[in-house]
Amino acid sequence: MTLPAPGSREPLPAGFVDALRARFGERFSTAEAVRAHHGHDESHFPDMLPDAVVWPHTTGEVVEIARACHAHRVPIVPFGVGSSLEGHVLALHGGLSVDFSQMNRVLAIHGDDMDAVIQPGITRKQLNAALHGTGLFFPVDPGADASLGGMASTRASGTNAVRYGTMRDNVMALEVVLADGRVIRTGGRARKSSAGYDLTALMVGSEGTLGLVTELTVRLHPLPEAVSAAVCAFPDVDDAVRTVIQTIQLGVPVARIELLDTLTVQAINRYSKTSLREAPMLFFEFHGSAAGVEEQAQTVQEIARENGGKDFEWATRPEDRSRLWAARHDVYFASINLRPGCRGVTTDVCVPISRLADCIAGAREDIAASGFIAPIVGHVGDGNFHTVILVDPDSADEIARAEALNRRIVERALAMDGTCTGEHGIGFGKQDFLVAEHGDAAVDAMRALKLSLDPHNLMNPGKVVRAG
Amino acid sequence: MTLPAPGSREPLPAGFVDALRARFGERFSTAEAVRAHHGHDESHFPDMLPDAVVWPHTTGEVVEIARACHAHRVPIVPFGVGSSLEGHVLALHGGLSVDFSQMNRVLAIHGDDMDAVIQPGITRKQLNAALHGTGLFFPVDPGADASLGGMASTRASGTNAVRYGTMRDNVMALEVVLADGRVIRTGGRARKSSAGYDLTALMVGSEGTLGLVTELTVRLHPLPEAVSAAVCAFPDVDDAVRTVIQTIQLGVPVARIELLDTLTVQAINRYSKTSLREAPMLFFEFHGSAAGVEEQAQTVQEIARENGGKDFEWATRPEDRSRLWAARHDVYFASINLRPGCRGVTTDVCVPISRLADCIAGAREDIAASGFIAPIVGHVGDGNFHTVILVDPDSADEIARAEALNRRIVERALAMDGTCTGEHGIGFGKQDFLVAEHGDAAVDAMRALKLSLDPHNLMNPGKVVRAG
Repeated sequence: MTLPAPGSREPLPAGFVDALRARFGERFSTAEAVRAHHGHDESHFPDMLPDAVVWPHTTGEVVEIARACHAHRVPIVPFGVGSSLEGHVLALHGGLSVDFSQMNRVLAIHGDDMDAVIQPGITRKQLNAALHGTGLFFPVDPGADASLGGMASTRASGTNAVRYGTMRDNVMALEVVLADGRVIRTGGRARKSSAGYDLTALMVGSEGTLGLVTELTVRLHPLPEAVSAAVCAFPDVDDAVRTVIQTIQLGVPVARIELLDTLTVQAINRYSKTSLREAPMLFFEFHGSAAGVEEQAQTVQEIARENGGKDFEWATRPEDRSRLWAARHDVYFASINLRPGCRGVTTDVCVPISRLADCIAGAREDIAASGFIAPIVGHVGDGNFHTVILVDPDSADEIARAEALNRRIVERALAMDGTCTGEHGIGFGKQDFLVAEHGDAAVDAMRALKLSLDPHNLMNPGKVVRAG
Repeated sequence: MTLPAPGSREPLPAGFVDALRARFGERFSTAEAVRAHHGHDESHFPDMLPDAVVWPHTTGEVVEIARACHAHRVPIVPFGVGSSLEGHVLALHGGLSVDFSQMNRVLAIHGDDMDAVIQPGITRKQLNAALHGTGLFFPVDPGADASLGGMASTRASGTNAVRYGTMRDNVMALEVVLADGRVIRTGGRARKSSAGYDLTALMVGSEGTLGLVTELTVRLHPLPEAVSAAVCAFPDVDDAVRTVIQTIQLGVPVARIELLDTLTVQAINRYSKTSLREAPMLFFEFHGSAAGVEEQAQTVQEIARENGGKDFEWATRPEDRSRLWAARHDVYFASINLRPGCRGVTTDVCVPISRLADCIAGAREDIAASGFIAPIVGHVGDGNFHTVILVDPDSADEIARAEALNRRIVERALAMDGTCTGEHGIGFGKQDFLVAEHGDAAVDAMRALKLSLDPHNLMNPGKVVRAG
């Protein structure tokens, strides 16, 4: 992809800076270190700093910020915790980073209706801590302790989407500040509605390019009566994948079913001080009534055994489960740790479940041919898997070769009716894949929609669709 | 609401009529009887005839039709089976009705991936017949044997949405012909994706105002291993509603949980020749493993008993279940039958489950004060219920009073964080409610989106948002 030339950035107008500094005081900064923090994420892309950062506390303040940016034609880049893997927070055209970390309150918990109204800066761990004692939880779990606003913006999912769905399924309503400062409310707290266009779904996954999310109403779920987790090793990745496919096709409502290849298990053992058998492995979690969990586990054990799975190792105590899933969540950092000083080029394809074995087998061949260290890990119940290609960030050659490897994996997934991104988003690195996946006409339609709400292309410009 | 004056209709350009007649032959008609059939639905609104009707067979033909309409600025109104309750098929501004009944093929069934690719004219019964023997079914069931294209367009749901979701959750991908004849493909067959704006969700529920759906990929579900159904009578509607609320809050995964008030049960007994106890009643259906169904049924029986529910009557044989649900599905016609010659003004509010008892109690008071015959029936597991207000279609006074009653019910639902329509859509009768529910700014955003894809307002003009 081509990055914008540094010269394409206009300095912030002096009047704009003075006005925001006067209005926000300590909550507005142009300091280099602050800008550096906000121009950096977990992707392999080079940092691209915003010109200034502001920390709003209320929707009204976000409106003021949007109006000021609109009046001065200053780009706006929303910032959660910076855990994006696709460069979403990078300020391609400079402008203002709006950091939502101080808008992180729970506004309401409606236990009887199983929903919560929250500000966008709250992280998933903070939200679940706030739900402690209610008997409810928020299930979407992308691994990183991301902000809910960021998760909504990338349509995030993660380990238990196979049971509880993605952000698409768990965001009921939004408050959004548009480019010109107008505030819209989308969706509602009713469990379903046919009232007009589904603006909530349009905003979820729009990566900050249509507006700034200032409030979310999210669906909560009852804590399961019983939970059990297990790991199971397999002779080969193929055997594990076949186990997954059969489990899903049988309709077993597994809560989590995660694949780790041998290299990933080795990385985890080294990074998280675990002693897992170093072989391809599935991590399972079952949620339900005591009897239901038992029934699910038995069915899956049989399927695994038929596919050569070695004994299930059960994690029955909550602390064992936590350790297991903490290790799974650290996979990204454990992988990066396999090669000191490297960064990860992370693939994120997702295919129909019947094609998963072929898709992963093809990816393994590509990786072997590439010579890269690239562990494979996946939310395989959804047909989604990642390879973390470890590259030297200072080697243009390695980055180009890693991007070529990613491209081969994406092209294969698209040929299998899959998607170039299951959960990380388009950012600016996958715009050509977006066209390859949906076609010019659909991407033109996306661009028309974008410009109808943001005619000056101020909202996270350069991401999702090229509209400049 | 105000209907457009008859004088606001332009006659079709002669060149347009000649060209379509030459191209489509017998599949193009301007006959009065044909137009009358296509200008009529199940709503109480007066018929409004299109100027002509065409029956395409392929996406390519739909493209030709759209291009011709675009060139001549002729409005397009899509037509499925005419079962809309909100006047969606009425040709407010004349134009061409595009009847999809001959585009009703199943294009692919992917059993291993649990999805099917279909044309929009197929009805839900036709689809399920085509799935016979696959072990899979399509769950969304709005009662009427509606077309899938129509169901997608109104974001339909029905009796088992409480378990399987609405059309929002069960449409994975679409092919859509835009106003100028461009064809876009949205979504895909992967179980999840973060690739760009969710055009599928934007199209689902857009009531034909953004484009013509020419192909759908829908999610299928495994036929449950075990099914059981039951009816249970209650002393009062309140007791039944409390049973529903407690069942949902406990997280019991009921497949269907339907409320019928005494008047509805009487209407069913008369119309469907059943002998149900004439009292407020819940219809239940449980899906799952044999043990799971047993567990669910026991839990719900206990809850019902605590709320004064009389003995569950089980329908264990498939033919008994079919009779029960056929009677439930005929509720609309059974209700209409209570007053010969009448039509129904159907309310469709949906509220957070905790407010359902209050919302229904308020509606009952309003109905009692109104003097109308208006049975209550509902998909109460979602917080959604209907009242069918029986009006003399020739009495402007009755229609005005029925609309006032509907308005009171809607205003109460909105005050309870609910929606004016759970599943029937906005059409042209609920546009003011749409503004009341979402606010001017959100509806302005919907209008901007609409005009970005359909700048001449040719696609089902006058529905959802006023864009003329």
